Amino acid sequence: MSVKGIDYEHEGVNIRIGEQSSQKHIRINPSKGVPVLITDKGDVITQSLAIISYLDDAYPSPRLIPEEQMLRTRVLEISNAIACDMHPVNNLRVLGYLKNELGVSDEQKNDWYHHWIHKGMTAVENLLSTHGRGPYCFGSDLTLADVCLVPQIANAQRFGCDLTKYPRAMDVYERCISLPSFEKAAPENQPDYIK
Amino acid sequence: MSVKGIDYEHEGVNIRIGEQSSQKHIRINPSKGVPVLITDKGDVITQSLAIISYLDDAYPSPRLIPEEQMLRTRVLEISNAIACDMHPVNNLRVLGYLKNELGVSDEQKNDWYHHWIHKGMTAVENLLSTHGRGPYCFGSDLTLADVCLVPQIANAQRFGCDLTKYPRAMDVYERCISLPSFEKAAPENQPDYIK
Repeated sequence: MSVKGIDYEHEGVNIRIGEQSSQKHIRINPSKGVPVLITDKGDVITQSLAIISYLDDAYPSPRLIPEEQMLRTRVLEISNAIACDMHPVNNLRVLGYLKNELGVSDEQKNDWYHHWIHKGMTAVENLLSTHGRGPYCFGSDLTLADVCLVPQIANAQRFGCDLTKYPRAMDVYERCISLPSFEKAAPENQPDYIK
Repeated sequence: MSVKGIDYEHEGVNIRIGEQSSQKHIRINPSKGVPVLITDKGDVITQSLAIISYLDDAYPSPRLIPEEQMLRTRVLEISNAIACDMHPVNNLRVLGYLKNELGVSDEQKNDWYHHWIHKGMTAVENLLSTHGRGPYCFGSDLTLADVCLVPQIANAQRFGCDLTKYPRAMDVYERCISLPSFEKAAPENQPDYIK
C-alpha cells in the first residue's frame, strides 16, 4: 500500500491472542486468515499474493509484477520461493502446532525455524545472484520480490538467524528498509503494534 | 503441459531416494527443488507457480490465469490457499523433518497431515462456494485453481483424509480427473512412476 501510495483504513487483528477466530473476523473471513483486503466495492480478498496481484492491477503505478515475460517469471520465482517454501512452514500457527500439539522444546522449535530459513535463503540468494541485479532484487525498480523478501528477513532477524551468508539478499534488505515506503509499512510503525 | 497440449521431454527426479541432491540435479537447480522447467532457450525456471505463469504467457491457449481482474484475483486466491497454506506444510521434506529430526510417531505425523488438509480444504471449499461456479472451480473453463486443486486432493486421498465435507471441491476434482489431459498428467501415468 505504501509503495503504491494507496490510502487505506487499517484494522488490526492480533493473531497472538487469537483475534483471527473472533466472531467479527470470521464474518469477514470464515477461513480465519490474515491479511484480508476489503476493496472500495466491498470485495473481500484473502491470500497475500492474490491481494498484491489485485492491487497491482488496480493501482499499476509503480508496477510490482513486471509485464515483460522473463522478468515477471524471475520475480514470481523468488516471491514464491519465499511465500511457498519459507513463510508457511515458519508462521505462527505452525510453530504453535509444534509446541502445543507435538510438545517440542523451545530449542527444537528454534532449530526448525532456522532450518527452513537457511534452506530458503540459500535458494533465494542463489536466484538473486544468478538472475537479479542491484540495487533492488531486479534492478532499479522495486518488485514483488523485494516486497516478499523484506518481511521474511525482518522475521528471520527477530528469531536470531545469522544472515551474513546471504550478502545479496541483505544488501537489498538494507536498501529497502531505508525507503520511506518500507519504513511506513514496518511492524513497529503500525497503529496496533505490540512490542 | 497436457492441458495446454505442449510437447516436452520428461526427466524423472526421485525425491524419495534423494535424487534432488544428486550432482546432476544440483547442476540444474542448486536449490535442489523440483519441479524445474528448462525452456527451449535454455532458461531454467523453478517454483511451480512461476513455471505455470511462464507457460501461460508462452502458450496462452487455453489460458489458466484469466485476464479479467476479479476472476484472476479469485483464481490466484484459491491457488495460493493451496500452494502456500496446504502443500508446503505437508510435503515430503517437512514430513521427513518431523520424523527424522523431531522423532514424531507415525500417528502424530498423520494427525499433522490431516490437520493442515482440513484447515486448508475448509478455506478452499468456502472460497469455491462463495466465489466459484461449476462445472470447474470457476465456470466452464479450466484455470490454475483446478490445476492446483487436483494434485492436492489426490495427495490427501493417498493419506486417507475424509474429504466428504468438501462437496464442491470434490465435484471439481472428479470432473477434472475424467479429462484426458488430467489423466495424462496423473502420477501413475508418468514414465518414472514408482508404485
